[in-house]
Amino acid sequence: MHHITNYVTVNDCANITLCIGGAPVMADAIEEVEEMVSMAGALVLNIGTLNSLQVESMLKAGKEANRRSIPVVLDPVGAGATKMRTEVANRLLEKLKIAVIKGNEGEIGVLAGGGGKVRGVDSMGLDGDHAGIVREYAKSTGSIVVMSGATDVISDGRTTYLVDNGHAVMGSVSGTGCMASSVVGAFAGSNENLLTASTAALVSLGIAGERAAKTSKGPGSFKMALFDETAALLPDDVGRLAKVRRG
Amino acid sequence: MHHITNYVTVNDCANITLCIGGAPVMADAIEEVEEMVSMAGALVLNIGTLNSLQVESMLKAGKEANRRSIPVVLDPVGAGATKMRTEVANRLLEKLKIAVIKGNEGEIGVLAGGGGKVRGVDSMGLDGDHAGIVREYAKSTGSIVVMSGATDVISDGRTTYLVDNGHAVMGSVSGTGCMASSVVGAFAGSNENLLTASTAALVSLGIAGERAAKTSKGPGSFKMALFDETAALLPDDVGRLAKVRRG
Amino acid sequence: MHHITNYVTVNDCANITLCIGGAPVMADAIEEVEEMVSMAGALVLNIGTLNSLQVESMLKAGKEANRRSIPVVLDPVGAGATKMRTEVANRLLEKLKIAVIKGNEGEIGVLAGGGGKVRGVDSMGLDGDHAGIVREYAKSTGSIVVMSGATDVISDGRTTYLVDNGHAVMGSVSGTGCMASSVVGAFAGSNENLLTASTAALVSLGIAGERAAKTSKGPGSFKMALFDETAALLPDDVGRLAKVRRG
Repeated sequence: MHHITNYVTVNDCANITLCIGGAPVMADAIEEVEEMVSMAGALVLNIGTLNSLQVESMLKAGKEANRRSIPVVLDPVGAGATKMRTEVANRLLEKLKIAVIKGNEGEIGVLAGGGGKVRGVDSMGLDGDHAGIVREYAKSTGSIVVMSGATDVISDGRTTYLVDNGHAVMGSVSGTGCMASSVVGAFAGSNENLLTASTAALVSLGIAGERAAKTSKGPGSFKMALFDETAALLPDDVGRLAKVRRG
Repeated sequence: MHHITNYVTVNDCANITLCIGGAPVMADAIEEVEEMVSMAGALVLNIGTLNSLQVESMLKAGKEANRRSIPVVLDPVGAGATKMRTEVANRLLEKLKIAVIKGNEGEIGVLAGGGGKVRGVDSMGLDGDHAGIVREYAKSTGSIVVMSGATDVISDGRTTYLVDNGHAVMGSVSGTGCMASSVVGAFAGSNENLLTASTAALVSLGIAGERAAKTSKGPGSFKMALFDETAALLPDDVGRLAKVRRG
Repeated sequence: MHHITNYVTVNDCANITLCIGGAPVMADAIEEVEEMVSMAGALVLNIGTLNSLQVESMLKAGKEANRRSIPVVLDPVGAGATKMRTEVANRLLEKLKIAVIKGNEGEIGVLAGGGGKVRGVDSMGLDGDHAGIVREYAKSTGSIVVMSGATDVISDGRTTYLVDNGHAVMGSVSGTGCMASSVVGAFAGSNENLLTASTAALVSLGIAGERAAKTSKGPGSFKMALFDETAALLPDDVGRLAKVRRG
């Protein structure tokens, strides 16, 4: 799975992709991204430490992915915090067919025009009806929208799922949001139903997080255990332990 | 807390910032650094893998931080090892008001003109009176100067503290020096007395390191435990376990 | 040891270098790479996330290393996956004297003209006589060639060693291949016999991997234990536990 992503959590994204059974590739040189993405099951675009060169590579890789019907996942990290991030997120959404948009409450709220608040890369909350905002934004973009939070909200504009899996400690470790986008990409690359794939991805990482929280003593050991537990997930676990409601 | 930092230890810096209660943001695109820093409690500039574009972003972010009285922490990684690093460190010190300069013995020795030796990013030692060198350098720059080592030396040019917390194994893990600068930034962002803040930061990470050393079996488990122990620190621990002397 | 490397596994490379007793430096600014490499025991060039600027820095650092007889290790990550990677690997091999080429089966197979298959950064296998391909490629390049795999093959064109140390779980953690190149660099920097150095490096990391696999529960705890076990290796262990055959 091809990532064009930030240099903060890139190693976590590579490892969680391996844990979930995918084959991560990180490549952003404009000379090679088309060729690299052509072999990928999915493309994850994460603007966590974007710069203008990287955005050009994202557009080039994204267009090739679109041409080949390879699903593109966008994580608009920090959209709303700076004009550049909001504009880049919207430019990628305008120029590319994005299969799944995955952000936190603030990011999705800003992009959806629903008044989300973002400070740095953290959501400062979103007022109003979360499920409604996500559903309408999915409808208007034609993408699956995943809004991560204490309860994750996932919608294709018609059907909306609420996922209660996960653990609060995930918010105290850098990279869990980016990792969620990578897991969404891995599932999207192997399941044509992107609503199901995105929901299963959030459920899976959430279950692994719940288990990791039980055996860990703080953010360091939690992160280590999150990789172990993600790799140890069985297909049966996901069905059995999913906390999914209709929204 | 906004970082413009190297791509080697950036993930460690993000996680230690979370562990100590801060909200890390890494962003270095020249188009957005002013806006990003305007929301931050502190700005950490770390030249561990500097390049010419990044230096321009550091200057732009630093000027905006200065304008808003947001404290700027400089970690002059490898100053003395190459001309570029020494010159960039001095240029940042000349163009910006730096609240805290945090380096190892070699780096501070070189910048202070006191004959430090640096090889790569490692201190090769500093002859002479450490406390005197730090005090004079703090006086001449108007910054708090933190020289990390077996005994950390911290001075504002008048008062000098020596911190004996910490553990030798911290030197065998990549990133502990960078993490110390992030923790200094987090404390500086929430305490107007920067001498106290810097000292408390070094004490805190040192105590966490002492505890982590007790439960770990090598550099891998030490690093994991360092995050756990930093997150588990109680305000009371810091006062009770601090090994601070006047220098 | 100076690395010009990718931003995915760079932290792992720094830490494994420390674990094996080396002093890692990562620096890629064209203004400073000559000066930085002049102090180094070895130079590791890893094209995992290459871009055109970085390639220029690799050439500049490599030429200075050659001038000073500092060994240069090349890890041609993803050669064969994209034209750019294959071309850059071959350009570095043409313009620089490379002491050790270390790649997976697919990468070495492609570069040797022996029909390796690479997808992303993963080997998709190599048909034919591995030892023969490695030996001939070493002969034609004048470099030590290390082909990592379930059995590692190492040759100087005359003598060929097969190393059976290691554990399958190493393939499910991002960065173990890059770390192997760093360990080769560390050994090459302190042993003039580069065939012996490269073999000892693979044996050492392999033994650490075997031990780490015994105490870990998944990829997260394995990676942590790999650092611990590498740092805990004794010279005696390597001789005693090596699984080396003539190929």
